[in-house]
Amino acid sequence: MKNSEPARGMRDILPESFRLREFVKNKIMNVYEQFGFQLIETPCVEKIELLTSGEGGDNEKMIYKILKRGEKLKFDNCNKIDDLVDLGLRYDLTVPLSRFFSNNRSFLRYPFKSIQFGPVWRAERPQRGRYRQFVQFDIDIIGEESEMAEIELIMATHAALSSLNFQNLTVRINDRRILSAVVSEFGFEKQEQDRVLITLDKMDKIGKDGVSSELIRLGFPNKSIAKLIDFIEKIEIERSNKGRLEILSRIVGGNVIDRLRNVIRVTEAQINNLHIVVDPKLVRGMGYYTGQIFEIECSEFNGSIAGGGRYDNMIGKYLGESIPACGFSIGFERIITILEEKKIELNLNTESYVLLYKEDDLPKMNDVFNLATFYRSQGATVLLTRRKKNYTNQLKSYQREGYTGYIFIDKKGKFVLRYFETNGEMND
Amino acid sequence: MKNSEPARGMRDILPESFRLREFVKNKIMNVYEQFGFQLIETPCVEKIELLTSGEGGDNEKMIYKILKRGEKLKFDNCNKIDDLVDLGLRYDLTVPLSRFFSNNRSFLRYPFKSIQFGPVWRAERPQRGRYRQFVQFDIDIIGEESEMAEIELIMATHAALSSLNFQNLTVRINDRRILSAVVSEFGFEKQEQDRVLITLDKMDKIGKDGVSSELIRLGFPNKSIAKLIDFIEKIEIERSNKGRLEILSRIVGGNVIDRLRNVIRVTEAQINNLHIVVDPKLVRGMGYYTGQIFEIECSEFNGSIAGGGRYDNMIGKYLGESIPACGFSIGFERIITILEEKKIELNLNTESYVLLYKEDDLPKMNDVFNLATFYRSQGATVLLTRRKKNYTNQLKSYQREGYTGYIFIDKKGKFVLRYFETNGEMND
Repeated sequence: MKNSEPARGMRDILPESFRLREFVKNKIMNVYEQFGFQLIETPCVEKIELLTSGEGGDNEKMIYKILKRGEKLKFDNCNKIDDLVDLGLRYDLTVPLSRFFSNNRSFLRYPFKSIQFGPVWRAERPQRGRYRQFVQFDIDIIGEESEMAEIELIMATHAALSSLNFQNLTVRINDRRILSAVVSEFGFEKQEQDRVLITLDKMDKIGKDGVSSELIRLGFPNKSIAKLIDFIEKIEIERSNKGRLEILSRIVGGNVIDRLRNVIRVTEAQINNLHIVVDPKLVRGMGYYTGQIFEIECSEFNGSIAGGGRYDNMIGKYLGESIPACGFSIGFERIITILEEKKIELNLNTESYVLLYKEDDLPKMNDVFNLATFYRSQGATVLLTRRKKNYTNQLKSYQREGYTGYIFIDKKGKFVLRYFETNGEMND
Repeated sequence: MKNSEPARGMRDILPESFRLREFVKNKIMNVYEQFGFQLIETPCVEKIELLTSGEGGDNEKMIYKILKRGEKLKFDNCNKIDDLVDLGLRYDLTVPLSRFFSNNRSFLRYPFKSIQFGPVWRAERPQRGRYRQFVQFDIDIIGEESEMAEIELIMATHAALSSLNFQNLTVRINDRRILSAVVSEFGFEKQEQDRVLITLDKMDKIGKDGVSSELIRLGFPNKSIAKLIDFIEKIEIERSNKGRLEILSRIVGGNVIDRLRNVIRVTEAQINNLHIVVDPKLVRGMGYYTGQIFEIECSEFNGSIAGGGRYDNMIGKYLGESIPACGFSIGFERIITILEEKKIELNLNTESYVLLYKEDDLPKMNDVFNLATFYRSQGATVLLTRRKKNYTNQLKSYQREGYTGYIFIDKKGKFVLRYFETNGEMND
């Protein structure tokens, strides 16, 4: 007997769970397609140079690297491991999207609005509920420089989440330029900015005191740290977005604040009961953001279920010109986990029958298939399966799965259809 | 400017093509789900031991191998390249299915009927229309030893292809045990059987003479070769399945022939105008088949568009007991190529409008989004996009894509909806 477990950190997806995934995927996809976004796909495997070009931040440390093949693989003359590698598995969908857009620009609408759904890989330390292969579900708008892009992304993502009955959603919004301005306003060196922001990003987990002591440990000036924390507190006391933006407008140039005002004004007008909050401590990990950044939280769960932002400098690197871009990513795996915990009932929508046959029925195969075809032609699902000795339990399990009834062949050779009632017993 | 091509042998999938792929996938999936088959997923990455256990035949030579990570990767003490590798990308869905079934047996129905749709990778020499990452679309029945399995797989696959309007389908059917019996009947050594069959499999490409001369070149006895070719000819002259099975029954045990007769009888009764042909030179590449094998051909195209067979010895290796299994795989990439060449029109099904805005319209954002939301709430697709200077061409391209109309803001600030007619012109 061989070991039949999947590779470390990977998982098998069972039928019930995969049905839910397909259901959720299709729901979200339908919303995005109604917004005129277009499905595309890039290969899971990319050239290693693309994946290690610096856009991926820490994700680049977690790449699954693929060996060269055939004659290109020269072990004997090789000095370091990277000489053996030419490909890797993608760690996100944004870096490949940039390559895709550059490679296929002449065949695409411009502005281009894409939908991507696909697996990515990161060799992270395995944790409960986190896997090394997981799905990302992204929409992006390439080529729209105005805040029309941000608004539409927020509206589409909000509509997608609402179609799955996620309620009480909060959008947190910020702008990378606010973060930069704040950090330099309080005397942190420009080149240290990223390290300050990485620490600030942990605020939700470790609190203000945690951030403060981490910044002290990293050797930043006490005065700067105190000012930064004071500032965050000052903003948080101010409950209204209007008030918060007023405070921020003293630090950051007008256009940044105007765009935030616009996004808030329009999304509040467009989305019923939308809760949108300016949050100047929102950082988001990825290094490539250049403008507004946002996350959506659902009050029933800690942490965000979707996130995104503007990254105007990434695609230009391929094309040698400036191309604005903005994206929003739904945390597909997180949504699935939440829906599984909620134990949402998925209706099969149609009638569905188990058609049970026994060894003795095999000569009557034609009749069995005829009946199955008849019900299927009416739109029903019909599962043919062998009757077990203990068919009471067998039937109960189909009932639990949501089947509406079962069909069996009685002693006189006649087909009998029974709908499941409170219990799954059958007499013949 | 960076190079933006995908890795060698890989491809980007553009929106129009991906929409077709989703459409085809969903059509086939719906049919399979109506048969009560269940969607599952295994990881793309598997342990290298699983992938190199010998089940994959030549595919095992084309594996993308993945480097160990972190501390496990020891370059200095390494003598051979395989010491650096612990994972690989799967080259088919059947080997992972066997592992999946063994790993999750207690959570699955038995017999278990699975649907798998997913990418696989083979580092083949790139050719026109063939890629190193491609999708396989398989159904399998695990645990049904009778020919109910073969019949249902043929019916489901036939129904799936019919739902895409593939007509004039021919099912070619054979049994591995017929091939074995024939080859040994004519004096080929038992251990040489695979080499003979690999050559026989090329009959469609190189003809009888080609097969004959290859077998001579391989050093097989002239007498055996002549008998084999004679036999194939004798079968081919006999047009009816009944006659062919009669001839074959003189060489192979009765059960093999009875099962073939049953499958032919029932599928012919179940499927209108089915053309099913016993073809004793059908081999199919994979080494793991043990019983019936089959392919579906469409008369409009050369070569098969689906293939499968029974492999009763594979899953047992994991579980230490015998488990019957049978599968059928639709050549998804081939089907897509055929449909793309046919230039099938995909209806967007709903009303779909392009809503064009100009830089000047940005202050009226709220109205623009209101209108889009209104039409979307009625089920329409609405694409917001910036109006280009040359919007006549822009509109024409949306018309070509299948959009039903466009909306623009006229000089008085009013929205105007126009349906596309013979040309895409617009006045404002």
